[in-house]
Amino acid sequence: MRFTAWQTFPTLEDVPRPAPGPGEVLLKVAGAGACHSDVSIFSDFTAETSPGGMSAPFTLGHENSGWVEEVGPGVSGFQKGDAYLVYGPIGCGHCVPCTRGQDTYCQNVATQPYLGVGLGRDGGMAEYVVVPSRNLVALGDSDPVTAAPLADAALTPYHAITLAQPVLAKGGATALVIGLGGLGQIAVQILQALTCATVIATDAKEDAMARASERGAVTVGAGEDQAARIRELTGGRGVDAVFDFVGVSPTIKLGQSVLAQGGRLTVVGIAGGEATWTFFTNPYQAVVTNTYWGTIADLHEVVAMYQAGQITPDIERFTLDEAPEAYKRMQAGTLSARAVIVPQA
Amino acid sequence: MRFTAWQTFPTLEDVPRPAPGPGEVLLKVAGAGACHSDVSIFSDFTAETSPGGMSAPFTLGHENSGWVEEVGPGVSGFQKGDAYLVYGPIGCGHCVPCTRGQDTYCQNVATQPYLGVGLGRDGGMAEYVVVPSRNLVALGDSDPVTAAPLADAALTPYHAITLAQPVLAKGGATALVIGLGGLGQIAVQILQALTCATVIATDAKEDAMARASERGAVTVGAGEDQAARIRELTGGRGVDAVFDFVGVSPTIKLGQSVLAQGGRLTVVGIAGGEATWTFFTNPYQAVVTNTYWGTIADLHEVVAMYQAGQITPDIERFTLDEAPEAYKRMQAGTLSARAVIVPQA
Amino acid sequence: MRFTAWQTFPTLEDVPRPAPGPGEVLLKVAGAGACHSDVSIFSDFTAETSPGGMSAPFTLGHENSGWVEEVGPGVSGFQKGDAYLVYGPIGCGHCVPCTRGQDTYCQNVATQPYLGVGLGRDGGMAEYVVVPSRNLVALGDSDPVTAAPLADAALTPYHAITLAQPVLAKGGATALVIGLGGLGQIAVQILQALTCATVIATDAKEDAMARASERGAVTVGAGEDQAARIRELTGGRGVDAVFDFVGVSPTIKLGQSVLAQGGRLTVVGIAGGEATWTFFTNPYQAVVTNTYWGTIADLHEVVAMYQAGQITPDIERFTLDEAPEAYKRMQAGTLSARAVIVPQA
Amino acid sequence: MRFTAWQTFPTLEDVPRPAPGPGEVLLKVAGAGACHSDVSIFSDFTAETSPGGMSAPFTLGHENSGWVEEVGPGVSGFQKGDAYLVYGPIGCGHCVPCTRGQDTYCQNVATQPYLGVGLGRDGGMAEYVVVPSRNLVALGDSDPVTAAPLADAALTPYHAITLAQPVLAKGGATALVIGLGGLGQIAVQILQALTCATVIATDAKEDAMARASERGAVTVGAGEDQAARIRELTGGRGVDAVFDFVGVSPTIKLGQSVLAQGGRLTVVGIAGGEATWTFFTNPYQAVVTNTYWGTIADLHEVVAMYQAGQITPDIERFTLDEAPEAYKRMQAGTLSARAVIVPQA
Repeated sequence: MRFTAWQTFPTLEDVPRPAPGPGEVLLKVAGAGACHSDVSIFSDFTAETSPGGMSAPFTLGHENSGWVEEVGPGVSGFQKGDAYLVYGPIGCGHCVPCTRGQDTYCQNVATQPYLGVGLGRDGGMAEYVVVPSRNLVALGDSDPVTAAPLADAALTPYHAITLAQPVLAKGGATALVIGLGGLGQIAVQILQALTCATVIATDAKEDAMARASERGAVTVGAGEDQAARIRELTGGRGVDAVFDFVGVSPTIKLGQSVLAQGGRLTVVGIAGGEATWTFFTNPYQAVVTNTYWGTIADLHEVVAMYQAGQITPDIERFTLDEAPEAYKRMQAGTLSARAVIVPQA
Repeated sequence: MRFTAWQTFPTLEDVPRPAPGPGEVLLKVAGAGACHSDVSIFSDFTAETSPGGMSAPFTLGHENSGWVEEVGPGVSGFQKGDAYLVYGPIGCGHCVPCTRGQDTYCQNVATQPYLGVGLGRDGGMAEYVVVPSRNLVALGDSDPVTAAPLADAALTPYHAITLAQPVLAKGGATALVIGLGGLGQIAVQILQALTCATVIATDAKEDAMARASERGAVTVGAGEDQAARIRELTGGRGVDAVFDFVGVSPTIKLGQSVLAQGGRLTVVGIAGGEATWTFFTNPYQAVVTNTYWGTIADLHEVVAMYQAGQITPDIERFTLDEAPEAYKRMQAGTLSARAVIVPQA
Repeated sequence: MRFTAWQTFPTLEDVPRPAPGPGEVLLKVAGAGACHSDVSIFSDFTAETSPGGMSAPFTLGHENSGWVEEVGPGVSGFQKGDAYLVYGPIGCGHCVPCTRGQDTYCQNVATQPYLGVGLGRDGGMAEYVVVPSRNLVALGDSDPVTAAPLADAALTPYHAITLAQPVLAKGGATALVIGLGGLGQIAVQILQALTCATVIATDAKEDAMARASERGAVTVGAGEDQAARIRELTGGRGVDAVFDFVGVSPTIKLGQSVLAQGGRLTVVGIAGGEATWTFFTNPYQAVVTNTYWGTIADLHEVVAMYQAGQITPDIERFTLDEAPEAYKRMQAGTLSARAVIVPQA
Repeated sequence: MRFTAWQTFPTLEDVPRPAPGPGEVLLKVAGAGACHSDVSIFSDFTAETSPGGMSAPFTLGHENSGWVEEVGPGVSGFQKGDAYLVYGPIGCGHCVPCTRGQDTYCQNVATQPYLGVGLGRDGGMAEYVVVPSRNLVALGDSDPVTAAPLADAALTPYHAITLAQPVLAKGGATALVIGLGGLGQIAVQILQALTCATVIATDAKEDAMARASERGAVTVGAGEDQAARIRELTGGRGVDAVFDFVGVSPTIKLGQSVLAQGGRLTVVGIAGGEATWTFFTNPYQAVVTNTYWGTIADLHEVVAMYQAGQITPDIERFTLDEAPEAYKRMQAGTLSARAVIVPQA
């Protein structure tokens, strides 16, 4: 499933089976999640507005899992047939963030040929994908297909939540999840497992709220007094940690308006909303911040939660031939779960 | 229920109803937990070996809850009849630990007239008790009798666990609870709620292990290969956080032998066991430490967990007249839950 | 020096010598610093706009030091003649922030009769002042007059800086101090002592910049390319921790524009400036926050730095009779150092 | 300078100039520090007792700096002639510690062919050395020869000190450095720059104490009341952070005996001493731990401190021909500074 040009819907093409280079591993793909950011790549960006490091053509898919097929020169410690999840970002490898497994914040991103697997470099929407061995996280006996979305839809909220742990790790803590799509649903699960916080959740879609409610969240619908209703659930104290997976101006504003003293508002959604900040409207020591994806170590921890049954992505399976349909339904807003392409199906 | 002399079993005596001084509040006692350390006070210590700040006579009971009856001069913000839990420790009030609500580590403890409520100063095994207003934590509508043991049996493990959060707050974490009495059972509940860790638990008593198992712990019985069986449950990596509520040499040694790299062994039990430490047997960056009781802020957080149903102490109720029997059964080892004296019963 | 009515310049009046109540200590005042916030009290606020808890009349002065003269009922551990610094804020005493010595964030502030010593309750611009014993920090043999401004002008930046330690505590860190008045000059000293950061400093006044430069800061003057010049000093990476002691819109904007990935912008100045925040202009994981004053434990640590010679406030001494002049020169902007009233002079 | 067999003094041999493989860089060596652990390798260990991953022959030298000579396949971002310091440890590259740049704690160390550069794989005591590109830290214009010991003699104490920052980052903190050889002298410098702590230092050698004293430490000689004299320097409170660079039983015991409540004793020296730990002799919440070397990110921060003039290793230069002499003088104890082999001299 190839990205071929800016503002052009991707197409299915035959490409040669790739070979792993030094330090790399060839995986037979088990699952490749389709992400909203793929749509940004093929329909929104142009050569001028793209974040760089991405030039057509390349195979899409940055949420990947698969089985080891072949290892490249200098690689050891992997068995053919073992299942792995793939950490997508690939940076320069020698700047500080890269050396600590946080390729998302690579300091040399501007001069890199690609941003990661499926992001300028061939991704997982194919029968095979080649990835650096350090980007692999062992799945053991767990289902690799359902695991695929963990690589982004779980890693991103996990990273944001662990950074908020200092304000969440206490009796009586409260968290608010704004936006209950793929990332938000998993955020609810992570918060339930990783903290004792009361998890409050909101979304415009009733079925998404119902799903979050089944997962233990207290849901609050939209409406004029929404902030007041949320604050009431915190005993008036305000929310300790808000995670905004939408990121438009109204959701950021909602997050700000319900923050507790010392609380933390993390904007994860990249809708580009604007917020106004002043000393007097910011509760003392409350912080406003953002995050982007996560680290390799985070992904190992995410997989451990998956193996323990603490995270289960909601997925809808598609064959490789159906990949175009998956993206069309994503664009039309008719998917009710994460679309995962299953090339071996 | 009065402590009258060293190495002397306490007796029931009539004393005048106390009056609250400046900054103090008189509570009608709801519940007063009986703690093993009370037994140390009346049967083990002498004037020479006592930790100081305690001279007979005084009323026992340092795990107390009650309803506001009367407030002393300068106290505001309390309503008669409202239920509160009592933070027991009382330090000098102006050293650094005291100003941050950690009276347990008061730097002037040597010159203080008492260590706390029921510890040198009259405690809660009576119809009424007087306590400083800052030591009160609101219980709201929650049952104050069942809450009483929270003041020590929950506060102590909560404090130890929150200090271990940096090693526990991650997917795939593991914790080991050694000793499943009053504190250990609550430790299991706190770990289940506050972390996503696999909780491993061990005790010599089968029924205590069964109770922990119902609460979600994986139990491991004694035996030669106990450390190996525990390590296996961690995938060979070792345990991230060990809490030893016994504190004899074999339990400390067990804790050391199963620690992961960067793990944390907290000895909470004051049985005085000895351990041998060397660079080569300590996994890199693993720490060995101890803790004692907790802070006022911790107790507020413990009560929030109790109100959320995340902690429920196992208790057995006794009238004030039955208090001697409660201590006798404690000494005989025939209590199967925390004994709580209920003076208003 | 009495605040007698809103929007009215304070006056010198004779009042009776106060007596310490329970838990309180009477100090003979050594020094009382004059703070810009005093001017806000007597010239800016009205009954409607005041932060509450302050009604005329009361003696001004919330940066105080003195010698123990007499202790109230229930107070022990103090010797007549010993020098102490005073922690100014006084909250309800029993909410969570108060129990941990952070009265600045008292949850019951709305119903308190005063905010602190010199803030609704009689302060230090007098021969004597009464304060709660827990608010006292021992000065030992150190000069109590020069120490007076530590209670606010050092405590406030110290608190802000310690909260920023996670981003500052590393080789190659950089800090930016915006505004080099009383607080900013001490911020430079604290940063030099407490971190290995390159300290960059800016102010509109040349002499303030020169003073900061003597203290080891790299100063950067105003001008169109100011942000670029600051960024260059960080090797292009951006500033790890910005402290804005002014807080107008342009200074907050400057702070935002120079932040590093993961950096921290703390607005301390209460000028009420507005900032615009978006996902795309906020470097990943950079946080924007504020702080207000500090904790009692912080003040103990501030005094330790003062005793070690690591902090030395610049002060100008005034007698009590000259207090009106001190405030007039503050209003006129002709003070070149912190004005300290020395009543015993 | 080749290690040729266990318990055999190394010899100078001619070997072919190595070529960089994929992901590697060939450096022309500027300096290679000689470390006590090298002596352990060639004189203490046997095939049975060696930590594994090391088999003869290989070139010694794990504290290396040099200039880029040539880059291997897939490496970009390096200019010929630029100076770099080398992070020595090399793990499997794909376990969690390795992905976060902490190869020292590689989970697959048992199956690795070597431990690092100069540790099973050819090191820097040669004209050229090949290293993975991610192990390089840019030195800019700083002197690469003096920098060489930073790779271990600064990285190791830096790592230990940063882990202790939570107890050191406050006014009035105290630190104790036991052992003032290569690592201890740099520990004093790091503590002076990175904290405001009073640094107390002790060593059996008078000249080492004098050198530490010049660097701002308060030195305390051996003797029966040594612990009491150290405690007195802390105002009786005890030491917040002890770093034991010796690690024999008496030094660990000294460290334990002077710890403050909540203090941290880090044993860095690998002399294998034994300590006895009990609840009652461990100040509340004091921790006993160890550390080993550091991370790549740490080394970047160490280099930043070196470039800022905050760390300056004491070195003595030797040509490659004089390398045997350097080791002989190390074994004889007649070196007064870190020996650095300078192959291009």
